[in-house]
Amino acid sequence: MKHPKPLYTQHRRIEFVDTDVSGNIHFSRFFIFMETAEHELLRSLGTTVHLEEEDRTIGWPRVDARCRYVQPVRFGDELEIRVFVDRQGAKSMSYRFEFHCRGALAAEGKMSSVCCVLGDNGGLEAIPIPETIAEKLRRAATPAGSEVRS
Amino acid sequence: MKHPKPLYTQHRRIEFVDTDVSGNIHFSRFFIFMETAEHELLRSLGTTVHLEEEDRTIGWPRVDARCRYVQPVRFGDELEIRVFVDRQGAKSMSYRFEFHCRGALAAEGKMSSVCCVLGDNGGLEAIPIPETIAEKLRRAATPAGSEVRS
Amino acid sequence: MKHPKPLYTQHRRIEFVDTDVSGNIHFSRFFIFMETAEHELLRSLGTTVHLEEEDRTIGWPRVDARCRYVQPVRFGDELEIRVFVDRQGAKSMSYRFEFHCRGALAAEGKMSSVCCVLGDNGGLEAIPIPETIAEKLRRAATPAGSEVRS
Amino acid sequence: MKHPKPLYTQHRRIEFVDTDVSGNIHFSRFFIFMETAEHELLRSLGTTVHLEEEDRTIGWPRVDARCRYVQPVRFGDELEIRVFVDRQGAKSMSYRFEFHCRGALAAEGKMSSVCCVLGDNGGLEAIPIPETIAEKLRRAATPAGSEVRS
Repeated sequence: MKHPKPLYTQHRRIEFVDTDVSGNIHFSRFFIFMETAEHELLRSLGTTVHLEEEDRTIGWPRVDARCRYVQPVRFGDELEIRVFVDRQGAKSMSYRFEFHCRGALAAEGKMSSVCCVLGDNGGLEAIPIPETIAEKLRRAATPAGSEVRS
Repeated sequence: MKHPKPLYTQHRRIEFVDTDVSGNIHFSRFFIFMETAEHELLRSLGTTVHLEEEDRTIGWPRVDARCRYVQPVRFGDELEIRVFVDRQGAKSMSYRFEFHCRGALAAEGKMSSVCCVLGDNGGLEAIPIPETIAEKLRRAATPAGSEVRS
Repeated sequence: MKHPKPLYTQHRRIEFVDTDVSGNIHFSRFFIFMETAEHELLRSLGTTVHLEEEDRTIGWPRVDARCRYVQPVRFGDELEIRVFVDRQGAKSMSYRFEFHCRGALAAEGKMSSVCCVLGDNGGLEAIPIPETIAEKLRRAATPAGSEVRS
Repeated sequence: MKHPKPLYTQHRRIEFVDTDVSGNIHFSRFFIFMETAEHELLRSLGTTVHLEEEDRTIGWPRVDARCRYVQPVRFGDELEIRVFVDRQGAKSMSYRFEFHCRGALAAEGKMSSVCCVLGDNGGLEAIPIPETIAEKLRRAATPAGSEVRS
């Protein structure tokens, strides 16, 4: 699959608070943008990144995050953020992100999140992704028309 | 060199604003902590990350940043942040960071910064690291007593 | 005028990074939301909060900002942010903001911004609001149908 | 009492992430600095702003916050933050803050915090300030030598 389709695309305008004295967007913001895009993806699938069930809270803490910066992005620019699934594991998701701005790639990132039960004291215990969510993620990552039918 | 010494060590207490609803520190903060530690390192060497000279401004925009998360960190925790030089290039620096908390490694990160002249419109042009700064960085990265003398 | 109409209304979903360990949105975020709503108002009028003209940069630094918190707001909540003009001066604007969430007032704020030329070294000089912008702000603040005609 | 003494004084260097494209510190940061100074004051008195007791969590959510901006503050500047108590109530504290920079007043702020029990769902219930904490705050606000003795 050479040109995978993003699972989710989000548009976001750079705010004043996103900038720094260099005149460009602060590099740490891209990580927040990745996280928010991941959350919006989950929301679009009918779930949430911070799921409070009756007796437990399920979250998706990150275990790894990286970003490569290609072009400066400025106040007022609009970013197109594309979310791809790199790998869906039993307990974790690896996402890839592209940030497009003014027709060019501005940055690209990767992030891995693990499905966890959050303890009262901030502790984390990895659990298998609940099947209803896992199924939705698999479906979303499968290009329409390419699903194998029995 | 098996156990390199950090060029710079910083202590930093986690603030309320660093946390999120999970009860732990927000993952994006580690990137800000890396940046600030890099800046404090430069400051300790007598230079700055945002150097306004008479006719130009020199900055160190990041081209790559990553972080791996090992243990949750909470409000009130104190981080010990250790800065190492991975590689000193002609125009760029690659740093490695360790975050220690309550006696254990909580996270580790990498970041590469390029020495640039900042244009009026947020544009960036890579330049060789000014020799006075390059020399200071080399000296700081050289463990005392291991310098080769002619 | 008992029930003034907002000049601008914005909807904004609370992001994970907006929260803190208390489980609610961090109080400082409301100030960022006010600023962004002000900026979007200016954008909707065809101008911008950071106007780079040929020989100068015009900005709107705040001289005063306050917020009163009424109800907690949580991750995933959607805020409706309403912007009103309290007073339009020769060189400054005073805005009032209402934050509505789940059908109730969650917070209300005020902010005064001064129209300034930004100096190279971060200095600020207050100037009269350029007439094209002042006129647009006056028009936006005047409820349709209530304009006095000669 | 004409020249009250601050209960707490904190020094803080402006970080890169605190700045915006105007070249100055972002106005919202002063609110974070107020909060952190309040927390450090509480810490200096042997308590904390987020107190997890066996069966409840006590926090100090803000009900009101304001800041007046006098002089721009820039990257690399060092702020001296002075915390005063405006009023100690049965369930709340009102603080006043002064931000000094390069020998002049840069900003001043006010903030009121209410002592609350935090519910599981982000709910808040105001409670009387626990007497051990109230006593410490009273003592800290009383200039040495001016205590009335029986």
